[in-house]
Order: sequence, then structure tokens, then C-alpha cells
Amino acid sequence: MIYLDHAATSPLCPEALEAMKPFLNENFYNPSSLYTPARAARTAVKEARETVASCIGAQPEEIVFTSGGTEGDNWAVKGMALAAMAGPSPRRIVTQGTEHHAVLRPCDSLKAQGFESVRLPVSRKGVLSPDTLKQALKTRTLLVSVMTANNETGTLQPVCELAEIAHAEGAFFHTDAVQAVGHIPLNMNIIPADLLTASAHKFGGPRGAGFLYIRRGVKLPPLLEGGGQEMGLRAGTENTAAIVGMAAALKKRTGDMAEEMFHKERLRGLLIDRLLRRGLEFVINSDDKHLPGLLNISFRDADGEMILHRLDLMGIQVSAGAACNSMSTEISHVIRAQNLPEKYAKGTIRVSFGPENTEDDAERLAEALGTIVVQPHHCACGKS
Amino acid sequence: MIYLDHAATSPLCPEALEAMKPFLNENFYNPSSLYTPARAARTAVKEARETVASCIGAQPEEIVFTSGGTEGDNWAVKGMALAAMAGPSPRRIVTQGTEHHAVLRPCDSLKAQGFESVRLPVSRKGVLSPDTLKQALKTRTLLVSVMTANNETGTLQPVCELAEIAHAEGAFFHTDAVQAVGHIPLNMNIIPADLLTASAHKFGGPRGAGFLYIRRGVKLPPLLEGGGQEMGLRAGTENTAAIVGMAAALKKRTGDMAEEMFHKERLRGLLIDRLLRRGLEFVINSDDKHLPGLLNISFRDADGEMILHRLDLMGIQVSAGAACNSMSTEISHVIRAQNLPEKYAKGTIRVSFGPENTEDDAERLAEALGTIVVQPHHCACGKS
Repeated sequence: MIYLDHAATSPLCPEALEAMKPFLNENFYNPSSLYTPARAARTAVKEARETVASCIGAQPEEIVFTSGGTEGDNWAVKGMALAAMAGPSPRRIVTQGTEHHAVLRPCDSLKAQGFESVRLPVSRKGVLSPDTLKQALKTRTLLVSVMTANNETGTLQPVCELAEIAHAEGAFFHTDAVQAVGHIPLNMNIIPADLLTASAHKFGGPRGAGFLYIRRGVKLPPLLEGGGQEMGLRAGTENTAAIVGMAAALKKRTGDMAEEMFHKERLRGLLIDRLLRRGLEFVINSDDKHLPGLLNISFRDADGEMILHRLDLMGIQVSAGAACNSMSTEISHVIRAQNLPEKYAKGTIRVSFGPENTEDDAERLAEALGTIVVQPHHCACGKS
Repeated sequence: MIYLDHAATSPLCPEALEAMKPFLNENFYNPSSLYTPARAARTAVKEARETVASCIGAQPEEIVFTSGGTEGDNWAVKGMALAAMAGPSPRRIVTQGTEHHAVLRPCDSLKAQGFESVRLPVSRKGVLSPDTLKQALKTRTLLVSVMTANNETGTLQPVCELAEIAHAEGAFFHTDAVQAVGHIPLNMNIIPADLLTASAHKFGGPRGAGFLYIRRGVKLPPLLEGGGQEMGLRAGTENTAAIVGMAAALKKRTGDMAEEMFHKERLRGLLIDRLLRRGLEFVINSDDKHLPGLLNISFRDADGEMILHRLDLMGIQVSAGAACNSMSTEISHVIRAQNLPEKYAKGTIRVSFGPENTEDDAERLAEALGTIVVQPHHCACGKS
């Protein structure tokens, strides 16, 4: 079995599982309970917050634990909207075409409450140009939400520059960094984002855990209200095991980051080389600046879903788009936003290497694709 | 160590942990992925939904997995409000004074969006009378939200009758059953609620998992939007391990329910008997109809927090209120709503037995309380 779909979800890293075990067993106490045995759970949550913060150059009180990326994105968008509704802030949110649906759908929903939702166009590789944002912000705007790295293509957005533009025009800036945290260096002392979303299972942590970074001074009302947990910002009994597992995974991934980046990117380069050598015709949908090890390619006159299934039969797992929408076999909104010609768009697959993958995995995938993707011959007359 | 705070959180039952293990290890796949190895995860989520549904007399498609009770309660209240905002429905929600903050706070927040939030009074034991509800519904109402069992006192509300009244007056009915599911029989063929909230870790399942029952035909827009998971109703990668663990715990608890109810209630009765024999002066804050094994009592002229700490030193864990608000040592909103006289209110503790507790645990708690609670002598002259 060769797993090449780490952008969909990643195996729980051994460090995370080890860290979680006590809290799935004898240390089951509610971290908010006042008696002595609960202290270890409370301390573990506190230390996890410090670990997570230190991994991204944040302060512990800027990290709020959530149930995952979807909650974080929804909270950032809907929370800012809620805060705006209480005052004279502009009811306008600006985002871009390749955002995750966890950002786009909340923006769309807010239209019913009088918000304008603007979706900016991107380049053929999915990059939002700073000039495009600057133009769009000539109209007063509440929030700009642009992802750090795209989940389908791995394309990186120039978030530092975009955040500065947003701030210069008086807008808040949120970035969905679900695919980026634990994969590329992110330092909140440098990135001037107000809000940043992360999800544990994308970096070797457990499912059902994530965090929202909320810059000190930014007022975000809670989305999930109830008890006083998470500094009053996110109610619900703390999921100690998952929180601790997330911190352990992020610490591990942050420590190994440079090595893992080179390793995954080498595998990606190797794969591209082998596909070219086989004479396959494809386009790369990721920008030159992309997540290490993530390759989104479209084969001419091919069918991505067919490729996925054929690879599956050979024991290799890749995806034909985002897992969240995998039941739909339509061309994804990301590929559409990048205006890929139809004869390529349908032949799209996403390969996402993880730290445990080897050169042999890349070689075997290339070999498999060589047998699966049979492309009609192009002759000079222009007829295929 | 004698753990008597199961209403705060319960140890993960062995059946749940066993069921979870494969999905924390080799079976880490995203249930939405299309390749073969992901099928086992997808099947496990499907079977968990069937198991959960069968335990409460629901259909599988009426069960939507969430991150826990807080999310479920927030979703029910805010989701119904969102649906109402799109049409001519009345912007009025009726609830009662001892609800969990996960219901009360969302109701309060909705005031900013033009909603009226009515909090009905309850009896000295925390029961909402059907007549009180009937009166309140003379004004057209969108939603009635009344909990099945209170988390601090265990008092059961007459939810069947209340739901019928709500429906007769054209209102939807939601019940927070976080403390009830897995503890008392609940059958959605009998209980005419439209929405019901549950949380796994209250019945021996893992933290970070819960479900919202949404009766077929009830239109509830999603709170967390994004991918198409959970029939399009709740976005976010499925937390397979937690979902499977929750189903295993609920199945176990449902199978053992009658036995566990009698066992826990016998321990509760034993405790009351021993406290009375010791001549301690206290009032019971739970109604006669209450969760088995949950006892909320107030000692005259005592200090609940002091009792908690003294018991802690003796290796016994109880709580002085809800864990979610334990950092606050104020008299809880539940005890306030029940109008307990001040000389009792401060001396409140909650004891919640679990299936693994023994008669000896109850005896030892009574003995400990006998030494801790020293009450000033009452003489006939009325001076204490």
C-alpha cells in the first residue's frame, strides 16, 4: 500500500498517539474540575497551548482550541461578521476563488444577513495578486480571508503582503492555514494575520482537533457558546487527549520541518521527472511556490477519477480533488477558478507525499501512471 | 480514589477504546476518500450511525455527528434562528431557568439579531410546569428548548408533554439530552422532540464527539459549513475513531441500562440514608424524578467548595456545580433558579455515581461528609 494522499488526512504520528494514551485511559478527568486528579489534565492542556503557540511564534493566550479546520474557518468568518453587526463596520468580506468551502460557504450564507461577499479571481496557478486585492479594497471592507496554501494544488498565497494590504485599507485578515501548519514555517511575529486556522489531522495529529489563532487585541465573539472554557472563547469540555496529541504532532513536525520539506519536495520532483521521461502530457496546477510534496497535475484527455480507481487497484492512493467533496465527480471549484482548459481539467489528480514516503513510492506511482494514462496521439495537423 | 463526578465526564469505557484503536492506527483514512482502504472507515461511520440511531429509536439519517454537546445545543438554537430569519417565522425562543449555558448563551446572543428570549421559571426542584409553558406560548414562538435532565441536579423535565404543548402552539421543540442519553431510556418514537442533543463523554464515549438528532422533515441549516460530510449538514472530516467509540459506548450503556439505573440509584439512596442517620441537615435539590445516581444536595450553613476540597484531600471527587463553570465559585444559575434559601445555597455539592462505583464508595462518602460538614446547632430559640 502506497499512501499518497496526506492532504486528505495523515496517519497519526507515534508521538501524538503516545501523548494521547494517558488521557484516553486513567487520566480521563474534566480539565475544568477543581479536585487534584484533574490538575494533570488541566496542566496538559495548558502545556499543549504553550507548545502550539511556540511552534508558530504566538502567545499561548492567542491559541484557542477547536474541533478542527472547518470550525476555525466558520468561526473566523461568522465571528467577525457577528462583531460587525453590532456596530457600524462595513458588511463586506473579500476572499478568492480557490478558498476552501469552509470559508466560501459561510461567506455565501452571510449574504442573507446583508453581507456582500466578493470572490476575487486568481492566476492560472491559483495566486491572488496583491494588486487585485488592493483594487477590491477601494470599497470599505470588514474582512479579507485568503488561504495560506491551497488544499488541492498546494499553491501558496502571498499572505504577508495580502495581510498588509488588508490592514492598510482598514480590513481584518484571516488565513486558512489548514494545509500549511506543520508543513511550512509560519511565524505569527512575521505574518500580520489577525486570525489563522489550523487542523491537527493534516499534520499527524488526531481528528477532531484544531486551533484558531486570534491575535491579541482582536475581538472575536464565540461561535460555540456555553461554559467558560478556552478563556470564554470556545465552550465545551476540553478534548484533552486530542489537544495533547495535536501539540505533540506539531512539535514533532516543527522539529523535523526542514528535513521533511526537502524530502517531500525531492519526491515530488522525482515524480515530475519520471512522468516527463515517459512522455506524458500534463500541466502542473500548483504555482512554483507550493507546499512541499504536493503535486496537482492534469493529464490531457484523461479522467482523474478513472486514474484514481486504477491506482487504487494497484494499491496506490491519490485523490482526484479534495476529500471533502470527493463524492462529487465534478471538476472542482479550484480547477475552475484557475481556468484550466476542459481537455485537461477532467484529467486532474492530487498527489501529496508524507514524511514516510520513499523514492520508490514516487517511482512506482510514475510507472503506474505510465500504464494507466493512455493519451491520444497529437499530430501536427491539429486533429487528435 | 473514589470518582463520584460522572456528570462532569466519565471514564472511557473499554468497549469504546477497543473500537477506536484501529482508527487511531492503521485505519487512519479519510472516510470520504474514494479508494478502497478508506471504505472500512466509511463503513464504520455508517454502522456507528445505525447503532446510535437504534439506541434511541431513530432513523440513521436523523443522526448527525458533532464535536459534542455544546456544538449540538448551539446548532439547534442558532440553526433554527437562522432558518427563521429567512422567512416570516416569529423571532421568539422560550426556554427555562436551569438550562445549560450552551442553550442559554446562544438564546441571549440572538437578542442582538432581534430575537426575544424568554426564560421560564421552575419549581423548587427545577421542574418546568406544562401550564407555565402553555401560558408562555400564547405569544407565537419559534422554538422551545427544555433539557431532558439537568446537569447539576439531575431533575427530569416532562419533555414529552412539553414537546406536545410546543407543537400544539406551532413551535419547534429542542431538548438538551446531554446528561440523559445512555442513562435513561429515550425513544424518539415516543418523545415528540424535533431536535435532541447528545454528548459521548457523558456516557462513557470519547471527548470531542456527540450527535444532534434532527427529526425527519425538520429543516435545520448547518452551523459548520464547508465540505459535504454528514449529508451536507455538518462539514469537517469525520472523526472516525471518536464516532465509532461513541457508538460502542452507547450500545454498551443501552444494553446495561436497566441494571445500571438500579445500581446507581441504590447507591444514591444509600448515601441519602447514611447522611440522614448522621443527622446532617440538608435539602435535596433534585426532583423525585431524576437521573439515577445523581444527587445534588445543599447542607445548611456549609460551603460547597470547602467540602469539595476536603473530600479531594481524602481521595473522593465530587463537584460543587457544573465543571464547565467550576472556576467560578458563585452560586450556580441552576440553584438560583430553584430559589434555594441562601443558608443552604452555598453548601451545595453534586454527587454523580457511575456504573463502576460500589456501596462502599457511598458509605465512605457519607462517612467523610460526616466529619467535614460541621453544622452549627439549632436551638429552639431560633438563634443558631
